[in-house]
Amino acid sequence: MRAIVNVYLKNGVLDPQGKATHHALESLEFKGIKDVRIGKQIVLELDHSDSEQARKDVEEMCDSLLANTVIEDYTVEIVA
Amino acid sequence: MRAIVNVYLKNGVLDPQGKATHHALESLEFKGIKDVRIGKQIVLELDHSDSEQARKDVEEMCDSLLANTVIEDYTVEIVA
Repeated sequence: MRAIVNVYLKNGVLDPQGKATHHALESLEFKGIKDVRIGKQIVLELDHSDSEQARKDVEEMCDSLLANTVIEDYTVEIVA
Repeated sequence: MRAIVNVYLKNGVLDPQGKATHHALESLEFKGIKDVRIGKQIVLELDHSDSEQARKDVEEMCDSLLANTVIEDYTVEIVA
């Protein structure tokens, strides 16, 4: 079973990596970019057979290690 | 229009960040994790009205800046 976790900065939190990428794209003459934000995608391969248990465990991993919930939000997707 | 780009290491390329996270999760007593891989998720807000043109432009951005295509693959998803 595979879990896909996306961790991204909360709205309103400054994203310097995204800003730098935005400027770099503009200096490469790419037009029409309004905003760039950069997050992490974490793909976990799990032994679990129960997808509800897997989701619960992965949310616990996010809260304790994978995301800094003060400034970041996350989504968890369980893929069979 | 929003473009969601996922950039991840190609199969077979060592992922030290994923390995370190895997060990850290195990030391926190999480069980049943077979593998962890970590990539980037880049969310672009675009002025484009044509989704085909948006996809073409974003793929060009990936090839020229966002991904290192020697060791990384990427997917592009265009959201209305």
